[in-house]
Amino acid sequence: MRTPQLVQAEGLPNQVTIYEVGPRDGLQNESAIVDVKVKAEFIRRLIEAGLRTVETTSFVSPKWVPQLADATELLDQLDLPDDVRAPVLVPNERGLDRALAAGVREIAIFASATETFAAKNLNSTVDEQFAMFTPTVERALAAGLTVRGYVSMCYGDPWEGDVPIDQVVTVGARLVDLGCHELSLGDTIGVATPGHVTALISAFSKAGVGTDKLAVHFHDTYGQALANTLTALREGVTTVDSSAGGLGGCPYAESATGNLATEDLLWQLNGLGISTGVDLPKLVETSVWMAGQLGKPSPSRVVQALAG
Amino acid sequence: MRTPQLVQAEGLPNQVTIYEVGPRDGLQNESAIVDVKVKAEFIRRLIEAGLRTVETTSFVSPKWVPQLADATELLDQLDLPDDVRAPVLVPNERGLDRALAAGVREIAIFASATETFAAKNLNSTVDEQFAMFTPTVERALAAGLTVRGYVSMCYGDPWEGDVPIDQVVTVGARLVDLGCHELSLGDTIGVATPGHVTALISAFSKAGVGTDKLAVHFHDTYGQALANTLTALREGVTTVDSSAGGLGGCPYAESATGNLATEDLLWQLNGLGISTGVDLPKLVETSVWMAGQLGKPSPSRVVQALAG
Repeated sequence: MRTPQLVQAEGLPNQVTIYEVGPRDGLQNESAIVDVKVKAEFIRRLIEAGLRTVETTSFVSPKWVPQLADATELLDQLDLPDDVRAPVLVPNERGLDRALAAGVREIAIFASATETFAAKNLNSTVDEQFAMFTPTVERALAAGLTVRGYVSMCYGDPWEGDVPIDQVVTVGARLVDLGCHELSLGDTIGVATPGHVTALISAFSKAGVGTDKLAVHFHDTYGQALANTLTALREGVTTVDSSAGGLGGCPYAESATGNLATEDLLWQLNGLGISTGVDLPKLVETSVWMAGQLGKPSPSRVVQALAG
Repeated sequence: MRTPQLVQAEGLPNQVTIYEVGPRDGLQNESAIVDVKVKAEFIRRLIEAGLRTVETTSFVSPKWVPQLADATELLDQLDLPDDVRAPVLVPNERGLDRALAAGVREIAIFASATETFAAKNLNSTVDEQFAMFTPTVERALAAGLTVRGYVSMCYGDPWEGDVPIDQVVTVGARLVDLGCHELSLGDTIGVATPGHVTALISAFSKAGVGTDKLAVHFHDTYGQALANTLTALREGVTTVDSSAGGLGGCPYAESATGNLATEDLLWQLNGLGISTGVDLPKLVETSVWMAGQLGKPSPSRVVQALAG
């Protein structure tokens, strides 16, 4: 199997944590409903390939996301090694109750940086969403859980267009104040470019939220995800969200192309000698298998090239 | 049509020259043979979209590249504005004769950085290829033409694997010594990563070939093209090869995915406020039209998203 030539670069981290979102963000946005046994096998294979942070599912209402209605059943089928972090998405206190009952140790909450997306996705305003998050996060922290905060539409909103950087920082800083240990800055519709990435990370830093608290989450809708990720690494970010095989997408974006593929990210990190602990051939094999389960080819360039 | 939010970045050029390779490198590697009238219309539309450097065709033997057998006829059909540069590829003196007869003002020659590709593509050794180039370039310069030198397999070779940086620099520097005004550093199989890009550009600089003489030419086989291009821009390169709609590919790569799509590049440059003179919506329209002519969808993420 072809590999990149190893040549390191200045100004980049030695190690990157890949936060794998395929089972949750990926499958949530695939139209097919996947059997719970296949999901469990998918997660088992991701861990076997070396991934150590895998967001497994979401305790959102099955009415809204039928793809993940089997959250409790799925977690019941998993036998996770001790060194694996397996956060789940939790929209509100009811979701938290289900997550706690399932023995979850880490959760993530999902905030919007824009009014229109808050209205459409959460049926609230940007301000009101915190009324929902506050008791959820407080109870989670009291139960000893860690909480990640997603901030969506950080670089553009399909209805509002440009999104002011200050607005994103305000929402993110409030999540940190609530007790989130990490923010994931989501380019939900994939429009970001490198100057914007640098400006947003700098603005967070000025607001007291350093790169040790930031993860980046880019979508490849316009082919920009990997260049933006590289830019974030240069700014000091060391946690990157990606999806095995590029699974998923955003129903609000103009294209089916969604998350940055973990394999495309790994190719770059491997070439740069940045350690991740993940085995690329094993991951490609997993994504090829999963593409077969979904009945459609992976959009990952690396998967297409290496599996071809 | 959606656009990126404009946020500039430090350490990048204000302006980039896009060297459009779709009509030559793109169509040469498509299996379909396109009618000469369609090619002429394609080039006309690319120029209408604002591209000012368009490699139009190749005077290689029709025996080897039947897709471009109509080179003379195509140039005859073009009515190029005065401010448009329209180089053609020329493999040897016989090709130069045909190019001169067609009134061409700029040519490009195609060298290999590796022995195996030199043997397979040029039926020569790395050293022997210069015996072919020398009289071609000397006669072209004497006739007042400018000559670009492509260096292929700069970052990896499908048969040899890793390619030593010194070997690439030696081949490139010889082309400059011959009189090439510009080198295009080709990642023919798409394996490069950013540290390698920086190392190669630095090595050329140490050998006396500065970024004013370098263009970059990345393939997106492993999804790395845009991140590598961004890296080259940070190193001071200001000429970037790309192909409208991502047309083309490399028969020696493991995937059908080929050249960096001009649209994906433009999205990034537009977001960064880097001027190119190219109108993205017009270019997308052109690539959608050309995809229709070829009977297959464009692999460009931007074309897929904006045309969807």
